[in-house]
Amino acid sequence: MSSTLQETISWPTRKAGTFEITDEVAAVVRRSGIETGLVSVFCQHTSCSLVIMENADPSARLDLERWLDRLVPENNSDFVHTHEGPDDMPSHIKMALTRTTEVVPVGGGRMLLGTWQSIFLWEHRRSPHRRRLVITVQGDL
Amino acid sequence: MSSTLQETISWPTRKAGTFEITDEVAAVVRRSGIETGLVSVFCQHTSCSLVIMENADPSARLDLERWLDRLVPENNSDFVHTHEGPDDMPSHIKMALTRTTEVVPVGGGRMLLGTWQSIFLWEHRRSPHRRRLVITVQGDL
Amino acid sequence: MSSTLQETISWPTRKAGTFEITDEVAAVVRRSGIETGLVSVFCQHTSCSLVIMENADPSARLDLERWLDRLVPENNSDFVHTHEGPDDMPSHIKMALTRTTEVVPVGGGRMLLGTWQSIFLWEHRRSPHRRRLVITVQGDL
Repeated sequence: MSSTLQETISWPTRKAGTFEITDEVAAVVRRSGIETGLVSVFCQHTSCSLVIMENADPSARLDLERWLDRLVPENNSDFVHTHEGPDDMPSHIKMALTRTTEVVPVGGGRMLLGTWQSIFLWEHRRSPHRRRLVITVQGDL
Repeated sequence: MSSTLQETISWPTRKAGTFEITDEVAAVVRRSGIETGLVSVFCQHTSCSLVIMENADPSARLDLERWLDRLVPENNSDFVHTHEGPDDMPSHIKMALTRTTEVVPVGGGRMLLGTWQSIFLWEHRRSPHRRRLVITVQGDL
Repeated sequence: MSSTLQETISWPTRKAGTFEITDEVAAVVRRSGIETGLVSVFCQHTSCSLVIMENADPSARLDLERWLDRLVPENNSDFVHTHEGPDDMPSHIKMALTRTTEVVPVGGGRMLLGTWQSIFLWEHRRSPHRRRLVITVQGDL
């Protein structure tokens, strides 16, 4: 029988960077009781985003974050949208280059992530923010 | 009870840039009668794409569009695929860096977009095109 | 009546580049018997990814691959995560800039891809790998 469970979680980010949210998503999948289906994670913001990335060596994530910082530097004189701070427009661009939603398969009652995959909330702003994520599980009980 | 509604919408783009399609997607969600679930928007083309972006200040979208234009300039002498025009190969690259599908949660019978989020069709070609989007709503009535 | 079918396919990649997987996904959609819904393809790795790209002229894909190779070159002296080889960290970045999941609508019992769209597994590592993709079809029979 098909079913849907939806929960919103709130995540405080203290600074720019990637924050692992895999356990929080896994908990919603468990509560759903769904055996086979999909879970979608949706980020309700345009200056942070989501990415599924290697979880083994934190240096890989740091290299990824720094590479994107160099690709989209602050204080670009071409930017017009600057009144929300020098890290605002770069944040929107970094969001557009990564993801607002990630969709992960659920099988045997758990997320079918690969061995080295974890889900990360990627905060692009430097100041603390409270971020809301909507998690929706759909599938067969 | 689970249900699925699918509609195709056709969108004329007059030039390159982002065009808001939130209202059109919201109308399909309303017609579906689905209370809790997901809506997916799929772009049936490889030279335009989708992005969920800030809707408050149009200058943020302009900066985003111009930044991507500078990252992927036309007349790159490394390009081999040039016979469809100078803006064709950059369009494919811009599409690959953004999204073919966006998936948005539906709760309480409406899309759960954040306060500043809207859905945009991003036309990467300069000449007018008619673009087709397939909208699929799945969830509980 | 709503239904879910999930299958995992294993794909050997011999080198870096894009490999078309449309037929394999289409076969799972056929086996599902689902008439209207969605199929999601999930890549269980962080050094390869997915993209929906033009299938008509292979030179478009080659230009796309080479452009991304130039954007994310190997032997970047800023990289710290280098012990898995010079193509490892660029692979993670290329993955983050493209997609871990693609979601395609299903209508009339088949994928509603546009005329020029195909689904590609994008291997970013140079050495041969065996890649696992989880395909999930959800919708009405």
